[in-house]
Amino acid sequence: MAFSEFKPLDEKSLIEYIKTNPVLSNKIGNNYDDLNIKEVGDGNLNFVYIVVGFAGSFVIKQALPYVRSIGESWPMTKERSYFEALALKEHGRLCPEHVPEVYHFDRTMSLIGMRYLEPPHIILRKGLVAGIEYPNLAEHMSDYMSKTLFYTSLLYRTTTEHKHDVAEFCGNVGLCRLTEQVVFSDPYKVSQYNRWTSPYLDHDAEAIREDNVLKLEIAELKSKFCERAQALIHGDLHTGSVMVTSNSTQVIDPEFAFYGPMGFDVGAFIGNLFLAYFAQDGHADLVDDRKSFKEWVLRTTEDTWNLFHKKFTALWDKHKDGHGEAYLPAIYNNPELQQLIQEKYMKDLFHDTLGFGAAKMIRRIVGVAHVEDFESIKDASKRAECERQALEFAKLLLKERRRFQSINEVVSAIRA
Amino acid sequence: MAFSEFKPLDEKSLIEYIKTNPVLSNKIGNNYDDLNIKEVGDGNLNFVYIVVGFAGSFVIKQALPYVRSIGESWPMTKERSYFEALALKEHGRLCPEHVPEVYHFDRTMSLIGMRYLEPPHIILRKGLVAGIEYPNLAEHMSDYMSKTLFYTSLLYRTTTEHKHDVAEFCGNVGLCRLTEQVVFSDPYKVSQYNRWTSPYLDHDAEAIREDNVLKLEIAELKSKFCERAQALIHGDLHTGSVMVTSNSTQVIDPEFAFYGPMGFDVGAFIGNLFLAYFAQDGHADLVDDRKSFKEWVLRTTEDTWNLFHKKFTALWDKHKDGHGEAYLPAIYNNPELQQLIQEKYMKDLFHDTLGFGAAKMIRRIVGVAHVEDFESIKDASKRAECERQALEFAKLLLKERRRFQSINEVVSAIRA
Repeated sequence: MAFSEFKPLDEKSLIEYIKTNPVLSNKIGNNYDDLNIKEVGDGNLNFVYIVVGFAGSFVIKQALPYVRSIGESWPMTKERSYFEALALKEHGRLCPEHVPEVYHFDRTMSLIGMRYLEPPHIILRKGLVAGIEYPNLAEHMSDYMSKTLFYTSLLYRTTTEHKHDVAEFCGNVGLCRLTEQVVFSDPYKVSQYNRWTSPYLDHDAEAIREDNVLKLEIAELKSKFCERAQALIHGDLHTGSVMVTSNSTQVIDPEFAFYGPMGFDVGAFIGNLFLAYFAQDGHADLVDDRKSFKEWVLRTTEDTWNLFHKKFTALWDKHKDGHGEAYLPAIYNNPELQQLIQEKYMKDLFHDTLGFGAAKMIRRIVGVAHVEDFESIKDASKRAECERQALEFAKLLLKERRRFQSINEVVSAIRA
Repeated sequence: MAFSEFKPLDEKSLIEYIKTNPVLSNKIGNNYDDLNIKEVGDGNLNFVYIVVGFAGSFVIKQALPYVRSIGESWPMTKERSYFEALALKEHGRLCPEHVPEVYHFDRTMSLIGMRYLEPPHIILRKGLVAGIEYPNLAEHMSDYMSKTLFYTSLLYRTTTEHKHDVAEFCGNVGLCRLTEQVVFSDPYKVSQYNRWTSPYLDHDAEAIREDNVLKLEIAELKSKFCERAQALIHGDLHTGSVMVTSNSTQVIDPEFAFYGPMGFDVGAFIGNLFLAYFAQDGHADLVDDRKSFKEWVLRTTEDTWNLFHKKFTALWDKHKDGHGEAYLPAIYNNPELQQLIQEKYMKDLFHDTLGFGAAKMIRRIVGVAHVEDFESIKDASKRAECERQALEFAKLLLKERRRFQSINEVVSAIRA
């Protein structure tokens, strides 16, 4: 066998690989004459090939043993591919409408063959930068998050199932540590990888490194991230991990998946919508002042949380007499108590969401990995002004999150 | 091999077993003529043999695949023996002064050979029932708890070490589920295994099953127990899991060990000291009114927490520049912030301790497993009166724990 051990593929060896694999070769009708192969991995970590033939198509995603955007100096286990495939399959089973199908997984090669999300699918972040409204986004994302989080939590599952899967995903520790570093640590200290729009934000970055209250709060969130196995989370659910058309919403790239706090996923998504909002003034021009789009972003953020809340509690109500072991029916099955329990659970989850969302915003402005929302603003002083507004709001959110009772209050605070 | 598969031992086959095992047979000088064997398992789960020869001694503890005190109708994986041995070794490495040495472990036989805690060692609970003061108890237990909990937490360890061990101990799920049932569930619902001093406490037991606020609080604690992997906890640290003389304190029976919330251990110990306190009026007689012993119990409780707090934070200070990943030196190494972080951490741990302690008290009065502290009070009405006081205090503690700022305030509340 040519691929009995790990080997990074190029376009040529990729074809050889496909030929050895019936699932993949059948997808393209075993016809290699007019095959179209394109490397499109624009993320930080992997190589991604789109393979299109007359009979069909797929995507090949291969993990290399280092962080692609940094290079071989930042090693990163390629075993992440195994956990990505596991999470894609599990989340896909729970929410097939919004997770691309996995056709093939090869652990030795750290390689996933999966559905090609054909045009006009684009990365959501690019759509938001372009000012495109996605009328179904809140509906779809709330669907995805409520199903994947509820069904992998102890609200639905037994302790036995839970601990089994928690143990399995402890293996994805390399990626957890990467998150710990880039989200919870580096922005709050001097680090060679940090960058920001300098010199404009030099003082802002320094202020974060000297803010004791902020450091207390980020420590609490980090501890939840490291210790609390609440559900199988995506682990990197920003707007670059979502592909969209006006009708379709597909969540990709769960290589950071593990059993962690639900608020880390919901917060990642909402925090990145906030980043998109704060970047809009940098994209405004004479043709489009982006005012109406900004309102759409805020409305979508409100809808995302409110719909998530509604769907998540509806799943809970539906399965309250099921085999989930967090709240046994014999104890909690009276309507008044059930409501108290849900209100407490959702309030805590809401505050986690705001905290993690804020943390994800901060790290995108003063940490290693930035976002196209801001990066595409050419004028550095204008970009810095947008980033500063986002940063100030994120700091407020991280410190004061417990005083917000609803997403509408948060959005009001943004407007004010 | 006679023991190549699991077989419950009796006194005769035990001797055969020892003969096949050099570590054990050497301990007793390979001399079987004057061997003294006694079965002493008075706990709920296992068989325990004391083996004493002229040359030496040891204890053999064998787990059977069901709960001994209930019988074969309540199956319980004998794999718990593996986790008990793991925890004994790990905690023994961290605190050899207070954990008996393991000589031998046989996974197939679910059998541990370990140090025999010779007379005058007795079970602490029996000493407390007898009204015996142990002047070193708080010092020793705070030592044990601070070392075992600190050194297995992310305050000392890396995420990589942490997740590796969390995954391993996820395998002890059977025992975790038993705790979930008997501590966090059964007392709050009708269960065939529940019992209490009837008819005296019929109304009290019913009141617990109908107390919504109590159920909200116990749910929060259960969620921490199921989801929060904070440290390698003993998992059953009541006064029956401690053997004492006036100079020696030895913690045994960690078969419930797993990565859980630290407060579950500290709370178990302190909650059981409170049970001992409330039982004293039932043991008072003309010779000894137990007043001075009650004061000793309260003082010991205060000392246990205060010394634990002191030693735990001292270990933290000592290792604050170490490789623990919870609070990186580059972020948290300024004295003011370090103090804020520790105060917050210890306050949360204190409130967890009070909550779990209260839960452990409640379950010993209206749940399946009772304690000798109360059971040895022959007069049922007198016993019920002691139990009711303990129950009322535990309910207060569970509901109001967050308003206590120190253990001294808690002890004042007991006196009032």
